[in-house]
Amino acid sequence: MRLFFEPRTVALIGASGNAMRPGNHLFMNMRDTLGDNAYPVNPRLKTIGDRVCYPDILSVPAEIDVAVIFIPAGMAPEALEQCARKGIRRVIIESAGFAETGPEGKALQDRCLDIAREAGMRLWGPNCMGMINVRQMKVLSFMLPFIWKGRLVPGRVSLVVQSGMLSAGFLMHILSRTPFGLSKVCSIGNKMDVDEVDILEYMVSDRETGVIGMYLESMKRGRRFYELARSTDKPIVVLKSGRSSFGYHAAVSHTASLAQDDRVLDSALRQAGVIRVKGFNELMDVARCLGVSEAGPARRARVAVFSFSGGAGVVTSDDIADFGMELAAPLPSTLERIKKVFPEWMEPSNPVDLYPAIEKNGPMVTVRETVAALMEDPNVDAVYAHLFAPPIGVPLFDYDQMAALIKQHNKPFVVWIMGHLDTAAAITRELERRGIPVVDEIARGVRVLAALTLRR
Amino acid sequence: MRLFFEPRTVALIGASGNAMRPGNHLFMNMRDTLGDNAYPVNPRLKTIGDRVCYPDILSVPAEIDVAVIFIPAGMAPEALEQCARKGIRRVIIESAGFAETGPEGKALQDRCLDIAREAGMRLWGPNCMGMINVRQMKVLSFMLPFIWKGRLVPGRVSLVVQSGMLSAGFLMHILSRTPFGLSKVCSIGNKMDVDEVDILEYMVSDRETGVIGMYLESMKRGRRFYELARSTDKPIVVLKSGRSSFGYHAAVSHTASLAQDDRVLDSALRQAGVIRVKGFNELMDVARCLGVSEAGPARRARVAVFSFSGGAGVVTSDDIADFGMELAAPLPSTLERIKKVFPEWMEPSNPVDLYPAIEKNGPMVTVRETVAALMEDPNVDAVYAHLFAPPIGVPLFDYDQMAALIKQHNKPFVVWIMGHLDTAAAITRELERRGIPVVDEIARGVRVLAALTLRR
Repeated sequence: MRLFFEPRTVALIGASGNAMRPGNHLFMNMRDTLGDNAYPVNPRLKTIGDRVCYPDILSVPAEIDVAVIFIPAGMAPEALEQCARKGIRRVIIESAGFAETGPEGKALQDRCLDIAREAGMRLWGPNCMGMINVRQMKVLSFMLPFIWKGRLVPGRVSLVVQSGMLSAGFLMHILSRTPFGLSKVCSIGNKMDVDEVDILEYMVSDRETGVIGMYLESMKRGRRFYELARSTDKPIVVLKSGRSSFGYHAAVSHTASLAQDDRVLDSALRQAGVIRVKGFNELMDVARCLGVSEAGPARRARVAVFSFSGGAGVVTSDDIADFGMELAAPLPSTLERIKKVFPEWMEPSNPVDLYPAIEKNGPMVTVRETVAALMEDPNVDAVYAHLFAPPIGVPLFDYDQMAALIKQHNKPFVVWIMGHLDTAAAITRELERRGIPVVDEIARGVRVLAALTLRR
Repeated sequence: MRLFFEPRTVALIGASGNAMRPGNHLFMNMRDTLGDNAYPVNPRLKTIGDRVCYPDILSVPAEIDVAVIFIPAGMAPEALEQCARKGIRRVIIESAGFAETGPEGKALQDRCLDIAREAGMRLWGPNCMGMINVRQMKVLSFMLPFIWKGRLVPGRVSLVVQSGMLSAGFLMHILSRTPFGLSKVCSIGNKMDVDEVDILEYMVSDRETGVIGMYLESMKRGRRFYELARSTDKPIVVLKSGRSSFGYHAAVSHTASLAQDDRVLDSALRQAGVIRVKGFNELMDVARCLGVSEAGPARRARVAVFSFSGGAGVVTSDDIADFGMELAAPLPSTLERIKKVFPEWMEPSNPVDLYPAIEKNGPMVTVRETVAALMEDPNVDAVYAHLFAPPIGVPLFDYDQMAALIKQHNKPFVVWIMGHLDTAAAITRELERRGIPVVDEIARGVRVLAALTLRR
């Protein structure tokens, strides 16, 4: 699988010279990221831009690690046969028009698979958006260049998206909002040969991947998936639809493949240490925050909360109960220490209501003392910090201290920011570049804490 | 209560001439929205800008509907006594430094209350951000002018926030993100006299309020709250913290007042038809969407879903089960009708996977036919539409048809948009100005559908 993600040479069968066509975007992306090692193939063109275009794959004057096929489905078998003849071992079919379009497309897909099997070739797709290796900046996707250029941030999170339509839109959705650090992103489409288990196997062994996020509509080869998940310490976050009886029937109707009994699946995923999520945004939040923070996991999840608002502390306590965690009972010495920044009349407890203390000492000193006391407490497994973003000016918090304490104690630490959008964004930047995940909603932070501490 | 929200004349005791001080922002807001009917009081100033400043409230040459007090807590009783002498019947104390700061502050608060009771005066606050009447654009809050100016959109949603610190930040949080149509926004702080029941009573009778959203840390006078909620058709959305045992204990510690047994409270709220939410963003989402859409409620919630992605349909089905709703079973004639835009090989079912049909007919025709068929089906109580936002160009959907069908059938219709941020924003504008609520997350839309159809 490795060469699929790290090809040295690639060819595009179906390169287009028309800047309005996806076959052109795909070639431009390959050319811009693989340079002279990207070869266009199209019998009707002599050149694309300043590059020679080859009439067929056999004429390409190089050994090709990965051929991408992007031509009408009916022409795919012939192209595949030529790839086989050239000795190409890895092919991604990104075109649609196969099993997802009904019985004829299914027959076409089966023919492709036969050709590949006979040639000892691995086939990825069809009906997918291919692969983007963000760390090595290799783009084998037809995504419009303006969508990804300048917006791909190298990081630790690798994503796999199964769905046909969703895969095309998913990365675009993420990238046009808040980009986060990615390693590899791919979609596997109809997965006629390469499936989520192949991808998982690669990502588990990939040194550039620290967190694996997957959206799956069906799961094949469950035993192998389970073994792989058990074998690694890397967090694996899975959105697998079909949890409910409604969802089960919808899945059967959608994929025509047999859906699993979700209770069996759920318990297997849990045993394998997989973090299961329920929605796309939750998948993104949890994967992003696991990618930002390297702290955790812990055996228990006794959470200490401090907030600029007593009320927000109460709301958080409810959410902590919802996610099956505990409110930490800090040591008396911890509370003594926090009391030093509190007004005389007030006794600290968890959640720690810092508002009166902030009134007395300002946010800098108050938060610094509180963070230190809570992070050093052996009764505290994780800390949830609520910070307020004022309308003007970036408030001073000791971000370096937070980062140092997280590293020293290996305790998950998540920040919820409320307040003005602009200053909240500035605080977020300070925190996230120090490996501290930030959320914009109380319950999301609690969800992320459950993933960081308990891997669930 | 009405004059609190619709004062003709106001005075500010504690107006400041220093543009860096909240006492100045508060007066500027009052002056800019009430003009000559806003009177500043400060014994140390002769003028503020081009306006005469009065040494005390007794010197103000007008009858005052609402006096706002914004001076150090210790000076509040004397100011209140002067208000009483002038015959002012409504006072908002926005200053902090009362019960929330411990026993001394509590004693001060009690003194204020005694003065008010004796004078037959209603007291609002202390420790609050006051009131903003967006419909009549009257601002009695110390919020910085740049935060609200140009960002307050008149609409149907009125909001009440209890918490001290949260109240100051809450509206700022909303306004610096996506503004939505508001009628009245207020915070009630320590609610020494005016409480959530007073506010609810006003909002239930207020013609400019269509939806009521409340964040409450404690609930007083439960019986009266229940009766008011039962008496109105206006949706009331409540975030009341302290649901769990953790939250219960945190609430007791935070407010020092006895928290309710949440099961009793929850069942009372449910019986009263109150929509209970669990977090701030959920409160805002549900209130905003109820404010946008006038369709519903319905006796049942049999939901039809159509999507550009079969996979998203399956995820949605799970969420529908989570929120206690049903997947609709459309009539055979409805499915026949949808089949006309489907490719030959594909049978429609609910969720309706439109991807192959969109490939065949384009989005316009496909969505138009599907929307009409589903909205006209008596087996369908609500429709959840998934629309895809492409990277370039605003896709054509028949927004007017959607709005007409919603009106004709009085069926809730919610849209989830996935795709590029910019085109998604353009589609959202088209939809929301026609009264069609839009969400950016699948589960949020399902949550909103539960509120619109079942009022829960």
